[in-house]
Amino acid sequence: MQRIKLAHGSGGAATQELISNVFEKYLSSFLQGFGEDGGIFNVDMGRLAVSTDSYVVSPLFFPGGDIGKLSICGSCNDVAMMGAKPKFLTLGFILEEGLEIETLQKILESMAQEINKNDLKILSADTKVVPKGSVDKIFINSTAIGEIIKPCSVKNLANGDAIILSSPIGAHGGVIFCARNEINLKSDLKSDCRSLFCFLDSLLQTDLNLHALRDATRGGLAAVLNEWANSANCDILIQEDEIKIPKEVGGICEILGLEAYSLANEGAFLLALPKDEAKKALEILHQAGLGDASIIGEIRAKSLSIPRVILQNSWGSMRFLDNPVGELLPRIC
Amino acid sequence: MQRIKLAHGSGGAATQELISNVFEKYLSSFLQGFGEDGGIFNVDMGRLAVSTDSYVVSPLFFPGGDIGKLSICGSCNDVAMMGAKPKFLTLGFILEEGLEIETLQKILESMAQEINKNDLKILSADTKVVPKGSVDKIFINSTAIGEIIKPCSVKNLANGDAIILSSPIGAHGGVIFCARNEINLKSDLKSDCRSLFCFLDSLLQTDLNLHALRDATRGGLAAVLNEWANSANCDILIQEDEIKIPKEVGGICEILGLEAYSLANEGAFLLALPKDEAKKALEILHQAGLGDASIIGEIRAKSLSIPRVILQNSWGSMRFLDNPVGELLPRIC
Repeated sequence: MQRIKLAHGSGGAATQELISNVFEKYLSSFLQGFGEDGGIFNVDMGRLAVSTDSYVVSPLFFPGGDIGKLSICGSCNDVAMMGAKPKFLTLGFILEEGLEIETLQKILESMAQEINKNDLKILSADTKVVPKGSVDKIFINSTAIGEIIKPCSVKNLANGDAIILSSPIGAHGGVIFCARNEINLKSDLKSDCRSLFCFLDSLLQTDLNLHALRDATRGGLAAVLNEWANSANCDILIQEDEIKIPKEVGGICEILGLEAYSLANEGAFLLALPKDEAKKALEILHQAGLGDASIIGEIRAKSLSIPRVILQNSWGSMRFLDNPVGELLPRIC
Repeated sequence: MQRIKLAHGSGGAATQELISNVFEKYLSSFLQGFGEDGGIFNVDMGRLAVSTDSYVVSPLFFPGGDIGKLSICGSCNDVAMMGAKPKFLTLGFILEEGLEIETLQKILESMAQEINKNDLKILSADTKVVPKGSVDKIFINSTAIGEIIKPCSVKNLANGDAIILSSPIGAHGGVIFCARNEINLKSDLKSDCRSLFCFLDSLLQTDLNLHALRDATRGGLAAVLNEWANSANCDILIQEDEIKIPKEVGGICEILGLEAYSLANEGAFLLALPKDEAKKALEILHQAGLGDASIIGEIRAKSLSIPRVILQNSWGSMRFLDNPVGELLPRIC
């Protein structure tokens, strides 16, 4: 068995072989209530958070991660951003006929590491094989289910909230740009792809009024801030100097004419909470290992008829940060 | 907006436009705790069943259904087969650049109908757009979450169980064969694609000892029966005459040299339970609308060293029914 064949998706003997010899080798220790068409779990808690995402990133492997790691971190981070601890997963694989089994194994190994790190259980999984040319190598869907610790939602956003950014931005988008065959920039930059719950755990245990949390993935900081401004029906004023952009990301943006604020991240998030609680939250984040976290701005009353995101630089001059338009970078995640 | 563009997957303004103008038009009334990266639900019940599946069926539209209807029925049926009532869904769409918006709308309309019929809520959804050629038109992942009413599992299978088949077999597989461009058979056959929970609801409320339930999808009856024989470590003896095969399916199998037992179904299931409870279960299924349900066989002690599925015809002669091997029909679901 060197490559995926159509027979591996038939539901018959070859499917069983693929599951036993490849998938179970990496994932069997994380299965719960498994072996049939789904999984079962007991609930004794009040509220669950659920998030689904499909992963189509190209290339499959990039500095700092791969589609496997991304598929676990991504959906779990979405659940973490709802103030929940990710606990369960479902996984759906779509494989192209001809995919090298070795490639699949590398991806599964990487998933297993991340699943293990986060102490997750897999409730259900599915594999489809499609003829060569019907999909590009491998796409993965993951759905994460978590226990809500402290519910966070954009609905809580309010005039006067401070906005905290967890870490430097643009690394994932920058790395994918460089890793694409068509662009041959050399750079030591690594994707920031990582699971975020561990950094939020202690913050979620406090009595701080966390209003909203959001990881800045597709569309980057620009997309989240614009969505928040619209939800709150307020302006958001951002101090540009407070946003850390890695030197390499700055270089890539300059060469390619990109805006770092619109680049995708896979390990950076924004947090909004009442201004007088921001310092305390920042301390907790620093202690949790996010040494670069900083207060980057605030929500305030609209200055125009529509809510806007406003960037202010160190000279005091201001400009609008728009919602990204057009195709920024397909298959970023 | 006539066709899907890469910008629709950017996470920026065009993505918002696609969500508001297309997706929400069909699905907004089913959303729960939505609008961010995931959904929340309250649990006051003990056990949940979860199942995920990716749908890659080709062609997208076929007599009796389409990829949209299939994506709802399929995952909900998997949950129903665990003895649970499907309640929540997550949906992941992977769209090809250039896909006609009209095609997407037809699919969403069909999903909405099935979601409405089953009174489901959508907890989370995600859309990715990939460049032309990276995926064939549209793939959908769905994860269904249900409340367990009466747990069913292959682990319960036992020597002496009767096996009930819900309905005639092979229609979905036969239809997909005919609907493929390369095969020009004319037939009135429709896929049996349908949601199954409504037929099981009253049965699950009884005190009958339902041992296992399984819909016979990829790999058909042959795959399920072989899996059950292996799980129980017993033989399964099936009376061929009790299995109803629609005339058109029989014709297709004869012409194409297929085995109806290996053809995929999307609305037929098998039920195993103690022999002395089978008649009562059958009555309830008949009342629930499955007029064609019948007892087709039984689980019994192994006659050889390995468990086998044995087909007996009306003349009394027997043959083995093997697990399907090779590529039966790619992209069946």
